[in-house]
This record gives sequence, C-alpha cells and structure tokens, in this order.
Amino acid sequence: MCRWLTYTGSPIALEKLLYEPENSLIDQSLHARYGEETVNGDGFGIGYYGDGGVPPAVFKDTKPAWGDRNLRELARHVRSPLFMAHVRASSGTAIQQTNCHPFRYGSWLWMHNGAISEFGRLKRDLVLAVAPDLFPVIEGSTDSEVMFFLALTLGLREDPPGAVERMAGLVERTARRHDVDNPLQMSLATSDGECLWSFRYSSDRRSRSLFHSANTQTLRHLHPEVFGSVDVSDDARLVVSEPLRDLPGLWVEVPESTYTVVRPNFFDMHAFSPATP
Amino acid sequence: MCRWLTYTGSPIALEKLLYEPENSLIDQSLHARYGEETVNGDGFGIGYYGDGGVPPAVFKDTKPAWGDRNLRELARHVRSPLFMAHVRASSGTAIQQTNCHPFRYGSWLWMHNGAISEFGRLKRDLVLAVAPDLFPVIEGSTDSEVMFFLALTLGLREDPPGAVERMAGLVERTARRHDVDNPLQMSLATSDGECLWSFRYSSDRRSRSLFHSANTQTLRHLHPEVFGSVDVSDDARLVVSEPLRDLPGLWVEVPESTYTVVRPNFFDMHAFSPATP
Amino acid sequence: MCRWLTYTGSPIALEKLLYEPENSLIDQSLHARYGEETVNGDGFGIGYYGDGGVPPAVFKDTKPAWGDRNLRELARHVRSPLFMAHVRASSGTAIQQTNCHPFRYGSWLWMHNGAISEFGRLKRDLVLAVAPDLFPVIEGSTDSEVMFFLALTLGLREDPPGAVERMAGLVERTARRHDVDNPLQMSLATSDGECLWSFRYSSDRRSRSLFHSANTQTLRHLHPEVFGSVDVSDDARLVVSEPLRDLPGLWVEVPESTYTVVRPNFFDMHAFSPATP
Amino acid sequence: MCRWLTYTGSPIALEKLLYEPENSLIDQSLHARYGEETVNGDGFGIGYYGDGGVPPAVFKDTKPAWGDRNLRELARHVRSPLFMAHVRASSGTAIQQTNCHPFRYGSWLWMHNGAISEFGRLKRDLVLAVAPDLFPVIEGSTDSEVMFFLALTLGLREDPPGAVERMAGLVERTARRHDVDNPLQMSLATSDGECLWSFRYSSDRRSRSLFHSANTQTLRHLHPEVFGSVDVSDDARLVVSEPLRDLPGLWVEVPESTYTVVRPNFFDMHAFSPATP
Repeated sequence: MCRWLTYTGSPIALEKLLYEPENSLIDQSLHARYGEETVNGDGFGIGYYGDGGVPPAVFKDTKPAWGDRNLRELARHVRSPLFMAHVRASSGTAIQQTNCHPFRYGSWLWMHNGAISEFGRLKRDLVLAVAPDLFPVIEGSTDSEVMFFLALTLGLREDPPGAVERMAGLVERTARRHDVDNPLQMSLATSDGECLWSFRYSSDRRSRSLFHSANTQTLRHLHPEVFGSVDVSDDARLVVSEPLRDLPGLWVEVPESTYTVVRPNFFDMHAFSPATP
Repeated sequence: MCRWLTYTGSPIALEKLLYEPENSLIDQSLHARYGEETVNGDGFGIGYYGDGGVPPAVFKDTKPAWGDRNLRELARHVRSPLFMAHVRASSGTAIQQTNCHPFRYGSWLWMHNGAISEFGRLKRDLVLAVAPDLFPVIEGSTDSEVMFFLALTLGLREDPPGAVERMAGLVERTARRHDVDNPLQMSLATSDGECLWSFRYSSDRRSRSLFHSANTQTLRHLHPEVFGSVDVSDDARLVVSEPLRDLPGLWVEVPESTYTVVRPNFFDMHAFSPATP
Repeated sequence: MCRWLTYTGSPIALEKLLYEPENSLIDQSLHARYGEETVNGDGFGIGYYGDGGVPPAVFKDTKPAWGDRNLRELARHVRSPLFMAHVRASSGTAIQQTNCHPFRYGSWLWMHNGAISEFGRLKRDLVLAVAPDLFPVIEGSTDSEVMFFLALTLGLREDPPGAVERMAGLVERTARRHDVDNPLQMSLATSDGECLWSFRYSSDRRSRSLFHSANTQTLRHLHPEVFGSVDVSDDARLVVSEPLRDLPGLWVEVPESTYTVVRPNFFDMHAFSPATP
Repeated sequence: MCRWLTYTGSPIALEKLLYEPENSLIDQSLHARYGEETVNGDGFGIGYYGDGGVPPAVFKDTKPAWGDRNLRELARHVRSPLFMAHVRASSGTAIQQTNCHPFRYGSWLWMHNGAISEFGRLKRDLVLAVAPDLFPVIEGSTDSEVMFFLALTLGLREDPPGAVERMAGLVERTARRHDVDNPLQMSLATSDGECLWSFRYSSDRRSRSLFHSANTQTLRHLHPEVFGSVDVSDDARLVVSEPLRDLPGLWVEVPESTYTVVRPNFFDMHAFSPATP
C-alpha cells in the first residue's frame, strides 16, 4: 500500500504541496490515515515535467521520505506545472530504487497504489504479454511496473484509458486461468506531460480511496497556508490517494470504477471497465 | 524517541528475540505502542558479545529495521549470550550510521532512548567536559553519544552506576546555567560484556518506560513461540524499553529513578540519583 | 567486471582473507590489477556456510566494499569453513542489493564475473527457459542471476558441472538465433555447502582470469601475515578471480575451458564444454 | 583527497560540465589523474544558485557519483549561473551525507580538497575557536567543515579572503602548539552566490593542483562537444582541481599561495598568506 499525489496547474514549488499542507504526503509517509498500512517508509519518488518539451525528471530513493534531505531541497527549488509524488509501503518486494514509483518510459510517467494478488503465480504469464522490445526495459520486480509495460504494450501512448482497460482485462483473464480471485486492486496515475489520467478500480469493486480537489477557489479558501501565498491558476487540480486535510467541500471522492482526465482548463470523469478481447 | 532491548543468558539466536515475539522490537520499528513516536524507522543497530574476549561486534544501518535483509540474515545466524538492539526515531539529528546506537568504545556498548532538551544550546559546554583524548573519537552528532563519552570521562569503566550518576548531574548543572528546565530524559543501557546496567531516569521524574522480564519460567510459559524451542538458561533476562507482549506476570516495570544490574545468575535494582560534585 | 574469492578448509575468520593479504579482495574493490575495470565499487556480497546444516548466510550491500563498516565488523567476527565474497563493477545494470552476488537459492550460492553480450536482446528468451516455478524467484536484473536460475532449471542440484555446461550451451544457442557473437564470458563459482565448483569459460576462449592456491604449505610460507597465525587445515584451498599477491609458486592459473572441484581433502580439474541438446 | 569544479557564467545545464567533457568530474570520481587517490567514490555533492535571491540548493549523497541516477537526472534538469560540484575520497572519516561537500550556511557554500594533518589531535582546539552560536550547527566530522565554521567565525561574510587567511593562520598556530608540521593542505572554493573565491595553499607550499579556464573563446574552441551547442556568456569561467581535458591553452594553473576572485565580467588573482593575529 502506498500514497500518492498529482498536481496540474500553473507552475508551483513542489514543497507547497508535498510539505506544507496538514496531512501532507510527507506526513502520510509517516502516518497515513486512510491506507491499510499507516507507514509508507519503503522509498519514495517524484516525477515532474518542465515547461519545455524534455522528458520528465525523476528523483527516487529507497529511504523514508520523511527524513530525506535531498527531497526537501528539491521540493523547495523545483517548480512544475505537472508533477507526481509517491511514498511506498512494500508488501515484501525488494526495497530498491527500481521498485520506486513513478516509473518512466519516454515522456510517460506511471504510479500505482494497490497490488496484483498472488503476483508470483501470475508474473510469468504477465511479463510474457509485454512486447518483446519493451521486455528488457523492465528493471524492477514490482507488479506496478509490469502493469505499466503491459499498458504500453496495449496502446497507452495512443489511447491511455483504453490501454489501461485492456491491461486490467488481461490481468483479470490471466488470474482466472490461475484460479486467483479478485486479482486487481489499483488507484493509478499516468501522464504524458500534457494530460493526466487517474484510475480507481479493483476486481472486487472495493477500491482504494481516490480524491480530486474541488476547485481553485476552495483550495485557496481552505488551504490558505499553501494557496494564499502563491499565484495558482484557476484550473489547478490535485488528485490524491488520500486527502491532504479533511475539509468539507475541498475533496471529492472519485467513484468506484472511474477514471479522471485533467488538462489545462479541462476536467472530466468516465466509467472504467476492464476490456475483454 | 527510540525503542531498545537487551538480553543476557545462555547464547541465543538474535532472531528469537528480535523477530519472533509478538510486538517484537522489529515490529516496534514500524508500530511502537508505548513510545511518543510510533515509528522508529530512522536506522537501527545491534551490538553483541561473543563467548571469547574480543570486543563486541556492532552492526548498524540507517535504513528502517523492518525491511532490512542483512539484519534478518544476521539475526538468524548470530548467537550471543549478551546483546543489545536499538531502533531509532530521530528528532531532527542527521540519519547516519554514526548516529545509530549502540555506540562502542573498547569493550563497552551504550544505547539510549530519550533526549537532552535544547541540546544545541548545551552541546558546546557538554563536549568540552569530555576528556580531550576521548574528544576526537566522537563521530556523530547525537546527545546520546555525548552522554556516553561524558560517562566514559567520569569513570564508566571503573564505576558504571556512579559514572552515569555523575554524567546526569553534569547535564543537569549545565542545563541550569543555560536556564534549560528538565533537561534529561533517559532510559539507557550499557555493558562491558560481563555485566549489563540499565537506567531509568528523567529530570522531571516522568521517565520513558523500562521493563525487565520476571523470570525464565515465566518467559518459557508465556512466550512458548520463542522459548519453548530453545534451551535458555534459568538466569536469562531481558530488559526492554517496551514489553514485547503485554502479558500479566511476564514484565516488571522498572521504577522511576532506578537502575538494574544483570550478570549471570545475578539481578539487582538500586535507586538512581544524579551526582552533585 | 567483478572480482571474487572462495575459500574451503578449516574454519577461518573472513577478515584473514578479505582484508589482511596484500592485494586483498577489499583492495581489489578499489584497485584491481587484472580486471578490465580497476574499480569494483558498485556493491559487494559475502555468502558463508556454518558448521551445521542451515542454509548459508548472505550479506550484501550496494556501497563500495572498501569503506563499509558493517562488512569490516562481520569479517572480523564470522568464521566459516566455506565462503564466497564478491565485489561488483556494474556495466550499467542497476546498483541494487538484488543485483549483488552471491545469489542464493536454498542451500546453493552462485557468483559470477563476466557477462552475456547484448543481454537485453537475449534476456526474454533466456528467462522463458527458466522453470516456471523458479521464474518468480528472480529478483534482480542481471545476466548472472538469470544464469543461476537457468542452471538450477537444468539440474544444478543433481549434476552441477553438467548443468552449467547445459546453461552455457543454451546461452550460446540462444545467442546464435539472435546473431550475437561470442555471447558468454564467465568465471563463476557455485556451492551447496559441501563442495565448491569454479568454472572458467568464454565463447571466444579468451576467458577472464581464474586462479587456485597451490597448497597449504605454500600458503603458510608465502602469506605468513595471514596464515602464520591461524591454524589452517592442510586441505585449505582458495579459488580467486585475481591473485591476492603475485607470488611465484602460490597461485596456479586455471586453464581455459576448465572447471575445478574442491571438497575437504579433494581437489580436481576437468575440461568444460557447453552442452548441445 | 577529492576533486571539485566550480562554474560561473550564463546559466548552463549542470550535465554540460559534470558529464559531457572528456575527463569530466564524474569520470574523475572513477579515475582521477592528478589526485593522490585515483578513486573518489565516497560520496558527492552539488550546490547551485538560482537566478533569484533564495539560498542555494544542495544535493549530496554517500554513493559514488559515477553510478548515481538521481545526480544524472538533476544534472540534466538543473540550470544554474553559479554552481559547485565535489566528489569525495575519504581518508577514514565516516562516509555520511553530513561529511559530503559543499557545506552550506545561509547563502554561503564551501568545499575543500586537502586535509588538516593529524586532525584528531587538533580538532578540540579548533572547534573551541568556532563561535559558540555556530558550534551546534556543525553536523559532520570532517576537517573541511570545521575550516568552514572557523572561516565564518573569522569574518567570511564580511571579508572572505581575509577570513580564509585568518583561518589558515589559526590552523597553523594551533598545529605549532601541538608539534604538528605542515598542517594545512587545501584547494578550496567558497561563494555567496554573487562572487566565487578559490584558494590554493598548503603549509609546505606543495599544494594540490588548481586550474582556471582561460577564456570563453578557448572553451568554445577546445570543448565543442560542450560549448559548441550552448549559448555560454563571454565571462563564463571554470575553476577546477583537475583539468577536464588536457588541452594546451585551455587551462591555466593557479600559482602556489594564490586565490582567485570570479564575478560576472570580472576575474582576478591575488597572493594568499595565512594571517598572524
């Protein structure tokens, strides 16, 4: 179980969202409230896009986020109009940089909270379904990274929601062949630098929490410690696995089996349903 | 705030005490119950004596104890008749190996839970009181290590309880000069490989918890998962900052302002009182 | 490129061989003489068997061996009748604990110096040849670990030399299908705790160096700083990828395409030849 | 012994200077040519100023620079008009983040190559000379950091060259009292974000190497792989402990007992001489 956050809007210093709010993501690394595990101390990562067209930067470490001085420095000095941050709680998989989120391929970022049940039994069939040219790019040992490369194989770059639906369908069919029930549990986020998609889904329809911010006025009003002092655009939007602070009106729960699409001046939600071939 | 454990008795594999009990020290690294901080993920250390006369071995790392594979390996393969283990929660001091407990000097080990209040203001005067030949041996930046070198300066090797009382007195007098109230909070353990002393004291007489095990029969009876299968001697004794499992009769609280002495076939308690010059 | 060492004989403190000789393995982590890379600073590992029947202990870290204090401590306190040690120079693969040698499966250890050429192109076919029940046990991303699991798949536990010959044959056939020339370069060691096999082979017959110690008298005579003070048995034997010290008569080069077998009071060499199906 | 680099000029991506040149600083972490140690693998650090007035950012890690993925990412994404970078070879002091250079205090950065001889014997007297309010800010255990806090105590913020001369004088007088000959060996750099001072000095007048770049035309001509593609200002200037590439005309050795001053459109050199009280 992990916790994550995404931001899109006018460029903002990462620390404004990672450190300054009450129950910030860094607080959640030490004391999450909604997750099954309360401690997310098995590494962290941030991925951020710049204003130009370069691939996103990724900074990951295996240490707990709460005490990492380099993360503190970066968060203070990096400003970005679109970024992701993730704190990890391993369920046994090795604690190593290649298992930290977000994962990157070209200009794409991907991060995940959840799991594929009995991944050890399904792993071989799943990685065999990854495109052979993508296969050697897999570096870590997590289910999350395999999900990313399956989605890339199934068209993430052309049709992100469709590719994630096909990935989910593939995982569920593979699990059925191995008699694994309710295999998929996911709240995930992916971006190409222009648009940000977030998904809430699980095979048993009891998905991990996912929330988006209501609107910028509310953000400014309810988090004055963060948004009072910065000039944040009207279309700024946060999607988070756990609210930064439990304020009425600020956070809207994303419904079961739903995905959101966020772009400059655009926000939308759609039903999510694993694809059958 | 930190959590720690000491063991004396017939040689035992470290994992028996570090991993196997319910609410074991490794569990406490993730979810302590009694401490002010529930997470002790800022590094860990073990120090253990062998059967022979060599100085103790020390193994320390800055990673959280709960996920460290090397600690898991060592705990399985090392057997010792006298060892200490510590999981750390930093209150801002750097997370680095030289700040992990136990500290070692010659055949002596030392570990601490607690703090010197406003240590930054007192630090210079305190390190000046360390013997000049010991001064350059200080490697880290914690109050705990300075307390160790003060105790060494004040006679730890000749009269351990007296030296700790003199160290506590020195800290309190130094604090008074700087108008720092209630400066000392400590549950600490030290050993020379023959004997193990544990101290519970705080300037405000509201000391962090400290417990010792009642007797071996009780240990065998109440922790069959640990002591049922190992041949532990009748004089085996644990002193812990937090009970491994909340069982009536097993754990005895060490009173306020008290220290314990444990040797083979010997256990004793005495009043502790900071020494005035 | 990496450097490694194995020892079999009467139990000896690891530091005797890892630290005390001139041009010791720890020296080689900083300044190897024979390897293509002179620095082997991308992690290290030791694996050692005890006297009893338990699986071997493994201690690995991603830091350079030369400055690691925990390794120094362990090497001083651990005595073993059969152990392996490895210092790593990555050629691009992630620097992470799961990529450090030796690898372990049950009571087996495995370590490797060398590479599979264009491993990225061959990796998918090679991991597909790993037994499905072993597949999810692979944790890292190196060619060396895949070689280990291929050898386990092909009978390492029943017929170690035969399994390594079949593994080498499989790698070469797979490479041929992908038009990769001279794919295999290896000096490797494996053990089950009873016996130690070392192999020197490469597809182009220009294999990395491999040496074994001549005999215990010579060891005692030429390394008095190490073997003068310890009571080492007459059948003590070292196999190393690079001599610890360049002394005439002490080190015997293992010929091209050869493997050695070392057991208590037994040493033998045989020709090595990749197996065709 | 360590290697370092400073840059002032129009903003440039750090990777242009840290990675792209032949014999770049990152290459020097693995294979330095001029230093006494050829491997500088005991950690690294960068410190960089932005365009605005904020304190500089510092990013440090204990891993070898050559394999660090986070450093690679940062160097690609960070552009700065004034930065420092350092790769470390410890001579026994702990390998920890608080011992990595550059050190920072307010808007000041400081980094050092060299040593104070027999620092253990002199350390107590030297830290006693640090201003009491600065004393608790010292976090690590190196001579380099103590030199920084001595210089701050002795007026670095008002008169940098004078303060460094007073610091050097103090070190030499302290050494004389303890019968330590030739105590100081230093090539060091410090900056407040506006100006960059570099010093070459040693008590025995056999100082570690120090070079500055000749002029921008030469840079563009001789390092087309770096400066051909970037729009670097005419006053761009590098000061380095070891030339990035051994080209005639590009690098000018800074003479013994000399310091340089670099500001936008300004470069100057002066004699350096330890101050007597």
